[in-house]
Amino acid sequence: MSIDWPTFGLDLHLEIDPGAGRRAGLERALRSAVRDGRLAPDTRLPATRRLADELGLARGTVRAAYDQLIAEGYLTARPGAGTVVAGFVRPGPDGTAADAVLAPVRPRHDLRPGSPDVSTFPTAAWLRSARRALTAAPSEVYGYGDPRGQIELRTALAEYLGRTRGVLARPGQIVITNGYVQALALLTRALGPAVIALEDPGVANHREVVRHNGARVVPLPVDELGARTDLLDSLEVDAVEVSPAHQYPTGHTLTAARRRALVDWAREDGGLVIENDYDGEFRYDRQPVGAVQGMAPDHVAYVGTVSKTLAPALRLGWMVVPHRLLEPVIEAKRLADHHTEALGQLTLADFITGHGYDRHVRACRLRYRRRRDLLLARLRPLTDGLPPGLTVHGIAAGLHVLIRMPDGGPTEGDVLREAAAHEVAIGRLADRWHAPGDHPQGIIVGYGTPPGNAYSAALDALHDTLRQLVP
Amino acid sequence: MSIDWPTFGLDLHLEIDPGAGRRAGLERALRSAVRDGRLAPDTRLPATRRLADELGLARGTVRAAYDQLIAEGYLTARPGAGTVVAGFVRPGPDGTAADAVLAPVRPRHDLRPGSPDVSTFPTAAWLRSARRALTAAPSEVYGYGDPRGQIELRTALAEYLGRTRGVLARPGQIVITNGYVQALALLTRALGPAVIALEDPGVANHREVVRHNGARVVPLPVDELGARTDLLDSLEVDAVEVSPAHQYPTGHTLTAARRRALVDWAREDGGLVIENDYDGEFRYDRQPVGAVQGMAPDHVAYVGTVSKTLAPALRLGWMVVPHRLLEPVIEAKRLADHHTEALGQLTLADFITGHGYDRHVRACRLRYRRRRDLLLARLRPLTDGLPPGLTVHGIAAGLHVLIRMPDGGPTEGDVLREAAAHEVAIGRLADRWHAPGDHPQGIIVGYGTPPGNAYSAALDALHDTLRQLVP
Repeated sequence: MSIDWPTFGLDLHLEIDPGAGRRAGLERALRSAVRDGRLAPDTRLPATRRLADELGLARGTVRAAYDQLIAEGYLTARPGAGTVVAGFVRPGPDGTAADAVLAPVRPRHDLRPGSPDVSTFPTAAWLRSARRALTAAPSEVYGYGDPRGQIELRTALAEYLGRTRGVLARPGQIVITNGYVQALALLTRALGPAVIALEDPGVANHREVVRHNGARVVPLPVDELGARTDLLDSLEVDAVEVSPAHQYPTGHTLTAARRRALVDWAREDGGLVIENDYDGEFRYDRQPVGAVQGMAPDHVAYVGTVSKTLAPALRLGWMVVPHRLLEPVIEAKRLADHHTEALGQLTLADFITGHGYDRHVRACRLRYRRRRDLLLARLRPLTDGLPPGLTVHGIAAGLHVLIRMPDGGPTEGDVLREAAAHEVAIGRLADRWHAPGDHPQGIIVGYGTPPGNAYSAALDALHDTLRQLVP
Repeated sequence: MSIDWPTFGLDLHLEIDPGAGRRAGLERALRSAVRDGRLAPDTRLPATRRLADELGLARGTVRAAYDQLIAEGYLTARPGAGTVVAGFVRPGPDGTAADAVLAPVRPRHDLRPGSPDVSTFPTAAWLRSARRALTAAPSEVYGYGDPRGQIELRTALAEYLGRTRGVLARPGQIVITNGYVQALALLTRALGPAVIALEDPGVANHREVVRHNGARVVPLPVDELGARTDLLDSLEVDAVEVSPAHQYPTGHTLTAARRRALVDWAREDGGLVIENDYDGEFRYDRQPVGAVQGMAPDHVAYVGTVSKTLAPALRLGWMVVPHRLLEPVIEAKRLADHHTEALGQLTLADFITGHGYDRHVRACRLRYRRRRDLLLARLRPLTDGLPPGLTVHGIAAGLHVLIRMPDGGPTEGDVLREAAAHEVAIGRLADRWHAPGDHPQGIIVGYGTPPGNAYSAALDALHDTLRQLVP
């Protein structure tokens, strides 16, 4: 499908990929037009009704696409002016529109989940570790290396993960990756054409990654006891991805019975468990529950990263791979990019062995715990009223909470539009389900992202947003 | 196929993947056994004839597999003792065999192609650039970023590539990758199920990467005028990968007529040219020929890296992507690993804009030019004799030469075994062909790798090796 946009005073040719779903196709076409400058900042988009008519889509589809792009920062809902293309940070030096589009402008109050407070990145300590590591390293580290990564880092991680997460790992079975997404991609490739169960709700992007690498995705329902691992026997899958320490996005911990069911399934059916331990360092009310990997190291591929503890931009992750998958995983890594960049690995190894990493994680844990407490206190007037009110879900852990709206209450779209008017960006539950349908309405609030001095104002904006919508 | 190895006094269970070719399968099984410690250093391997009998393979297949693993450094031909498992550098701190196997020991004289002299990596200047870049950067650079990479680096590269390689690029169409292999993988993914012509002889690993990402590979013959781009019309392919500045491994430059044929094919058939400019900075006898991309920017994806100029371990490359492929390439990158690690990008951007990169490349150019001259002078007694003698192929460029053996002269296997006896590692032409067959015999000598003080001894060892074989 392809439309020109002169009806709206815009000379825009919008290519909609017929292979994508209708909403996804419209989102991608708009995102692409914004990215390459065909839709310039401040351009006003047509009203949802008009665009829906023009494209032959349901109005709700167009509205959902707008909502999504508002959440991503490509568009802005401007009170009184409808939906406009957002401005962008750091315009390109040559001033052309296409190159100016670098990253969507950060919303004033950024409570989207997924990123820590990067303003606390320990730049000076990191540079010291880099200097120490590179000065000591033999020149061979600058050549092509082991696809698994630098032995210094794998050795440091084997100790660290054993001590803090109960992971049983020898350096030889650790593979360093460019963050979680690459680990999932490599494991999927190593499994060959497989069927993989992913949590529902879960991370939308992981479904894309698994499919992109040739496997089929089936949903594994999640309830308040965590993922329904008791259903695995009936699903006929080769592997399952779970987030046992802190399910994303519901925030539950997998119960002991469900952990046993998971391990029993893996042992009896020969299935692979992919353990996504994305924020296992951050538990606030007790000692964190150890990794499932420690119970069944031959059946679990454990994956962790520095994306929540240090910075996503480092693109450093690790997986502990069961022996039977080690060779195909190494081969997939070699064919993906030979190995992960070495200098960051050596720096992180120094940072871990010098205990800088432990200190940093401890400081972050205190900071995020305080933030979670502040969030819950600020919303208490809206959550402690008589039902039906808002409910906050999830254990005292991690960097996000799930807030559910009562049945018959405001929809996610209602909340997102109100949030946009208050210049606050949040995540919505809708994208985390495997299939559209009549799902509970909820929003995901990430309290990790704002710099410390901006957090209080962000909470005020969130509170004011929600107060408009619940009685 | 699977054998136990007690007949040879080794309790080794060797799994040979029936999907791989016989030789490749045996190589992989042996490599894996060495890597994970089942074959310990100094273990003596069975004679080729005995293993061939045991496995039901031709003796030549076993010998070729041994030769390959000797070239890769996993095995060593020890005079009088047959073939043994090589020792390994930097044993793992916990001393277990599996973890001790980190990287094959560097051969005494390393003349394998593919890596520069990493002992010249400008560590101090690099750390200064890192400090300058990170101190100046806003904290947002530590978060998730544009899948294309950091705008600072893309802007610096647009200028640098235009100035030095005649590449026409706007920062918006540059995508930073983890080196060449990832760029090729992403382009293959972006093309969808495609047929891609690769140079024959060419880089074996690239064929694997293309196939691994769902495309079919067809050979594009190479002669002394470069790749036979005049044949593209008859090949019915969607894309072609070429190395126009310095064909790998033959060392030819694509002639002007062949460049025109390449561009005409791309324009008329809508095909994509993947331009592998892996060592375009290193031309010694004249100004380098500009990139083909400058002639047809809408039809050429230009790819370069720092792997030959700075260090493979940085895993930093770039591609300039034609507009029609930009969106699928960005999507493939996002699903591969979100984006390339940001700190190295910012450091390289500072290094380029501060002219440190130009200075370093200039110094390397002088160094490698001198090395090439020394190599040719050292071999002159063997190449200037009456035919049939050795012939050296390739223009005055890059980091390698191809040395052909005369028809009826020594085989590559002969040379590799003699080289192993002299503790010198070289590349062989055989692996670069798409299919086995009756190919000309040749070896590839990389003069970039040895540290400066080791180069002269490496040349002596190479000379002594070849002198044994040619009259």
